[in-house]
Amino acid sequence: MRNFKLVVAYDGTRYHGFQIQKGTRLPTIQGTLEQALTILTKEEIKITGAGRTDAGVHAQGQVVNFLSNTLVPVERFPLAVNSLLPEDIVVLQAEEVPVDFHACFSAERKTYCYTFYNSRMRDPFCRYFAFRVPVSLDLTEMNKACRLFVGEHDFSGFCASGSAVKNFTRTIYNCFIEKEDKIIRFLVTGNGFLYNMVRIMAGTLLEIGQGKRKAEDVANLLQKGQRKLSGITLPPQGLCLLSVGYDENTLTQPATCIKINQ
Amino acid sequence: MRNFKLVVAYDGTRYHGFQIQKGTRLPTIQGTLEQALTILTKEEIKITGAGRTDAGVHAQGQVVNFLSNTLVPVERFPLAVNSLLPEDIVVLQAEEVPVDFHACFSAERKTYCYTFYNSRMRDPFCRYFAFRVPVSLDLTEMNKACRLFVGEHDFSGFCASGSAVKNFTRTIYNCFIEKEDKIIRFLVTGNGFLYNMVRIMAGTLLEIGQGKRKAEDVANLLQKGQRKLSGITLPPQGLCLLSVGYDENTLTQPATCIKINQ
Repeated sequence: MRNFKLVVAYDGTRYHGFQIQKGTRLPTIQGTLEQALTILTKEEIKITGAGRTDAGVHAQGQVVNFLSNTLVPVERFPLAVNSLLPEDIVVLQAEEVPVDFHACFSAERKTYCYTFYNSRMRDPFCRYFAFRVPVSLDLTEMNKACRLFVGEHDFSGFCASGSAVKNFTRTIYNCFIEKEDKIIRFLVTGNGFLYNMVRIMAGTLLEIGQGKRKAEDVANLLQKGQRKLSGITLPPQGLCLLSVGYDENTLTQPATCIKINQ
Repeated sequence: MRNFKLVVAYDGTRYHGFQIQKGTRLPTIQGTLEQALTILTKEEIKITGAGRTDAGVHAQGQVVNFLSNTLVPVERFPLAVNSLLPEDIVVLQAEEVPVDFHACFSAERKTYCYTFYNSRMRDPFCRYFAFRVPVSLDLTEMNKACRLFVGEHDFSGFCASGSAVKNFTRTIYNCFIEKEDKIIRFLVTGNGFLYNMVRIMAGTLLEIGQGKRKAEDVANLLQKGQRKLSGITLPPQGLCLLSVGYDENTLTQPATCIKINQ
């Protein structure tokens, strides 16, 4: 049995999230990828994703893996799978990895980006890729708040209710706000994220940027651990899974590693 | 009667071009704008556009004008019209202009951009806004060819057949190629453009960039004036009407000039 790791980018606009929804035929990223891989390998393929992005959430560097006996050379995977995929999903890289590699459990860190479009005026070109904020934001305060997220914390206050997770402790390695013209990006890297965690962090930072909260509130919110005290959950279209990192030591030298020059 | 000038941006993806198509109910930019303006002014509004962009072509700075007796203050137009428009069309500016101002006939220059996405790999995020070229291009040769377009020429060789136009002479003021990471932009400013002219110029430049033609061919193509000798017409999604310029002297001081801070 061979284990394949794929790096995948997608525009999540028309998908009902990453994960296949039982009992419905709504399009999902997982379902669409599995269909293409099943055609290519002539085996029924089940993939595992590093992160289960919600409906409308995008990815520049989602990682999936799957087991297969296919004889298709790994270097042929990106172009072959892409020829079977719709225009809004693309396989960027493929490599063969050890059988114990698991896209989700082996992941050491993930980086998400939440994008704001800061303008009084709508922009017809970024409506599916950013959340528009018509008022000016205090980026210094937002960055001060970002620094309070860094480190190991209980993120119960930043998790949507109804989550089945029992351990709410996560470590944030890096967290900051950057601005480029009208685009404001909130970038966050951590060892894992709870359900809706980035969207609630972004919503809380937005309220801080608007002066509705103090940056120092973040310490309090982390300590109290009550969802209702934190900011709103921002809509999905601003969110993008940028990359998933793996400890290189847990991967033996892969049989082949292909990165197509973009 | 008051004359209003609007600057409009739109994502042309789901529209059947700027101009209302007689006998069909397919959505057009003109039809959608007229509907919103008719609701706002409570008069049947007919707009004139500076350029009739094709289906799938975008605009960052299309200009339209219309006559109306409305008492709505011009400074209220952008936000009021935008509240009646779908997310993919936005009015950026509104001003009152002299009654003889005509968005098309008064236009002194237009700037178009044709965007290439230069990568072996598809990008799910720019599929509606760029034309993908998987091979590397000789930008120096393309820019050499661009310089041959500058000046007053007969562009018969760069006009789709079946055009009703009789005068094929147009003046190109500026024309160049620029690259930013995987994005290559062809920018061209002229006093007017024939049907499909920018897309045929872009198609010819692409063949030059690929080494299929010499940059010097452009002089020959302009002289011969035969459409079949020029390059292919590239698809619409790469094209965007960036701006339309008017001679400031032909406009008397407008009653009010509103530009909402973006």
